[in-house]
Amino acid sequence: MKILHDTILKDGLALSDSILKVDSFVNHQIDPKLMNLVGKEFVKRFEGKKIDKVLTIEASGIAPAMITALELGVPMVFAKKHKPITMDDFYSTTVYSFTKETNYNLTVSKEFINEGENILLIDDFLSAGNAILGLRDIVNQGGATVVGVGIVIEKGFKEGRENLLKEGFHLESLAIVEKMEKGKITLNKLK
Amino acid sequence: MKILHDTILKDGLALSDSILKVDSFVNHQIDPKLMNLVGKEFVKRFEGKKIDKVLTIEASGIAPAMITALELGVPMVFAKKHKPITMDDFYSTTVYSFTKETNYNLTVSKEFINEGENILLIDDFLSAGNAILGLRDIVNQGGATVVGVGIVIEKGFKEGRENLLKEGFHLESLAIVEKMEKGKITLNKLK
Repeated sequence: MKILHDTILKDGLALSDSILKVDSFVNHQIDPKLMNLVGKEFVKRFEGKKIDKVLTIEASGIAPAMITALELGVPMVFAKKHKPITMDDFYSTTVYSFTKETNYNLTVSKEFINEGENILLIDDFLSAGNAILGLRDIVNQGGATVVGVGIVIEKGFKEGRENLLKEGFHLESLAIVEKMEKGKITLNKLK
Repeated sequence: MKILHDTILKDGLALSDSILKVDSFVNHQIDPKLMNLVGKEFVKRFEGKKIDKVLTIEASGIAPAMITALELGVPMVFAKKHKPITMDDFYSTTVYSFTKETNYNLTVSKEFINEGENILLIDDFLSAGNAILGLRDIVNQGGATVVGVGIVIEKGFKEGRENLLKEGFHLESLAIVEKMEKGKITLNKLK
């Protein structure tokens, strides 16, 4: 996606060979015009699929997932990293984050995953793919099916793509970072 | 806002005289069509004001703030409740939550609040108003000004409105809950 590539190269910051800072347009400050186009692009990439719901993870997944769901005319659900005290009937899974070197839980109220639903997963980053596998676990606990995975920025030098493709996922990443060195980002060729 | 009133009365759940569950359309599952209208309504309510940026709090503020910012053509920033390890230069404030009976920190990177900016605050709920006062503190630390406060659902039986009006804020709430008893919600008259 050209505008996303341009923005990553202009405003993204490679802090090391694995940490990409995009907090000026994706995960702290958000560029709503860009996110609007990102959402529309996901709809194009998954055209023809029956999608009943979009599922993402708080907080950075919400903006792109929201626009995707708006365009599709379906509800959006975000998995919580911190279970609210008022939620007592839920699906939950544990995810290991390589970036933060720690486990965290993802929780979704049972009300919002229904048997037989076709669910599109959206997230801002793909690294090892553990967060997506966690969401798939929750979807399956509810008897629903993952019909696709839409990623804003994939770290192409991590094993996420391999891990998801071998599970049979339809994966669409709008930008793939091939390589990073401190201060330099190399993206894949535009699709 | 009529459609918001209708949705609260249809899908909201008064768990007690103070806890309102709206997780089927506001803060866990999101109704994107409703949030799209909510964002557009905020733009109407603050028409004529110069707004450079929209500031909210993760995670439930992101959807309405995102649409508001998209309509205004300005960036949106969400304050973080859990400071990322990569953020080292930031404004921060402590907020007391009566609902959770605990303090939490709000953090915004210094990069994203600039001197002289006019900032619109958006949040999903207004209760005592402490979260909004915390955001105002961060905005002021950066030398910027709060030009308005847009709230999706105000708990009209709490002291938030009084606390914000005495500080001189322009406050717009799209729905005001006048009273709750377990199982029954009474809203204000439509504006």
